Amino acid sequence: MLGFKPLEYRQTANTIVILDQTQLPEKEMYKHLKTVDDVYEAIKSMKLRGAPLIGIAAAYGIVLTAHSNELESILKAADYLESARPTAVNLSWAIKRMKDVAAKSKNLFEGLLKEAQAIEQEDRSACQYIGQYGSELVKAHAKIMVHCNAGALATAGIGTALGIIYTAESQNKNPVVYACETRPLLQGARLTSWELTKNRIKTYVISDNMAATYMPEMDLAIVGADCIALNGDTANKIGTRGLAIIARYNNVPFYVAAPLSTFDFSIETGADIPIEMRSEDELRKFNNKKIVADRAGIYNPAFDITPADLISGIVTEKGIIERPDRTKIERLKNSGLNKYL
Amino acid sequence: MLGFKPLEYRQTANTIVILDQTQLPEKEMYKHLKTVDDVYEAIKSMKLRGAPLIGIAAAYGIVLTAHSNELESILKAADYLESARPTAVNLSWAIKRMKDVAAKSKNLFEGLLKEAQAIEQEDRSACQYIGQYGSELVKAHAKIMVHCNAGALATAGIGTALGIIYTAESQNKNPVVYACETRPLLQGARLTSWELTKNRIKTYVISDNMAATYMPEMDLAIVGADCIALNGDTANKIGTRGLAIIARYNNVPFYVAAPLSTFDFSIETGADIPIEMRSEDELRKFNNKKIVADRAGIYNPAFDITPADLISGIVTEKGIIERPDRTKIERLKNSGLNKYL
Repeated sequence: MLGFKPLEYRQTANTIVILDQTQLPEKEMYKHLKTVDDVYEAIKSMKLRGAPLIGIAAAYGIVLTAHSNELESILKAADYLESARPTAVNLSWAIKRMKDVAAKSKNLFEGLLKEAQAIEQEDRSACQYIGQYGSELVKAHAKIMVHCNAGALATAGIGTALGIIYTAESQNKNPVVYACETRPLLQGARLTSWELTKNRIKTYVISDNMAATYMPEMDLAIVGADCIALNGDTANKIGTRGLAIIARYNNVPFYVAAPLSTFDFSIETGADIPIEMRSEDELRKFNNKKIVADRAGIYNPAFDITPADLISGIVTEKGIIERPDRTKIERLKNSGLNKYL
Repeated sequence: MLGFKPLEYRQTANTIVILDQTQLPEKEMYKHLKTVDDVYEAIKSMKLRGAPLIGIAAAYGIVLTAHSNELESILKAADYLESARPTAVNLSWAIKRMKDVAAKSKNLFEGLLKEAQAIEQEDRSACQYIGQYGSELVKAHAKIMVHCNAGALATAGIGTALGIIYTAESQNKNPVVYACETRPLLQGARLTSWELTKNRIKTYVISDNMAATYMPEMDLAIVGADCIALNGDTANKIGTRGLAIIARYNNVPFYVAAPLSTFDFSIETGADIPIEMRSEDELRKFNNKKIVADRAGIYNPAFDITPADLISGIVTEKGIIERPDRTKIERLKNSGLNKYL
């Protein structure tokens, strides 16, 4: 991607350098994470976010502790990092991989570094394939609605949903993107508009509640995912469910783009996916201005569940699962493509 | 209502005193409007808003100019005020009434003041009746989703959508309200949560994109309206259309509450309702913080159109039009209930 890297591990300093996403689009500020506490805080406060990226960050976070070569303290750090955010399955998936490697490594630092690099490299490669497969869904001059940020800022590569758009652009299809701003933390407004325009993709930002106005013009809607259950129900950023309902009402194809690391085959349906509730203050204040009356309550779930029957297809690095259901996803599970789950 | 009046005309000072709604919920500040320019600016900047209230404000705005007793300058002021906001039909409706009275009054001030007072009084009364009729839709402990602010802050009375909730509360039904925050100007978060909690109604604020998560729990959704076409298509605050689609998907009854002054029988369908596009900056910045990349475009329509077939009923001061359609609304038109249209 043009001119930024959301995360980079520097071996000589044993440091993770991240682009602080809470400062975008105003400031492009990088932060150096040197301890597991730094990594935990960065994930929790969403200085870095995006399901694949937090998996990678946690993997390198474990590497930060590995010089000690003490298995117990490494496993403790791993559990601590896993508790930072409950919904994105890529986080627990990456941590499981790291723990498995730790259990059988002699040189813990070397083994864990190699595994973190593999997780990062696989994610970069998955984004490329998702982009390739997904770009087949994009016709020339397509108008595409997206939500939150499932882009280069959320992965080690070109992104998932936005990876499809970058790939279509590289095929001279000139897609036009409508990005929902994504309250409360405005990842669509702040991050998606930033990375897309930096890469010369024509982008319009709308508030989430304008989706129903512009959906009839869309050729396609594409979103990312934080967890996909065995039956295809998908947890993604709050607002995805409403977007899927509005897309269906308008007969607009609604696709989920996610690497296989986002599937949790142990979860039967969306009803069993844990949904992170975040602080009331994300809705109660904005930039220190109070925007809700004190005596009113607030609900702030960070994710919602889109039922599989509203999803036209799931774009993975192994191809597109059209009209996802339990049978197709079980076939995927049993094909052994995703050996870590 | 408890402790506030969004607008009051004071005859001795020939001044309109308004509650500056842009300052809520942090500050309860009142402003004195002494000229037509003051009134225009207050409507344009949404210091006062709400379809019925801006009609009343414009009526009194014309009164401010009437001491001159010069018909021409009064009509000019009327046209100027009408241009402040294009979508809310109550504004042009009130101005038409005032112009008709001006054309046949000897003492312009006296005639116009009387008419403005009549418009205000009729709106207050309409709210009472809407509250009565609408409260029949509310069962005990009902959970009700609302959008934007169709409350006491938007009318001369107890409000339209919120008037129904206040009336249900007075019947000891203890409704619980879920208020969508209503981006970009946050009237749901700032205004609805303020007036409901001031009146001891249990209220939760959610972001607009959480509606699909909480709709399955709702017994009812009620919104206001800025313009209702002959076929029942309804313009209301941006986000209403999406809410109606989500309500339908969940089989939740979706009602519009509005006085008859909100109907425009000269408009055949929603496609002919003019939609106000507001400044990009409402979405580009928040409290002076930039939240969108500079190179991204922005769309900011202030209203959307909800097709009649998504509306369970329209609650008016003359009763509820269930499953509104052209036949029923033509009957309403021809019954002569609304003599000014």
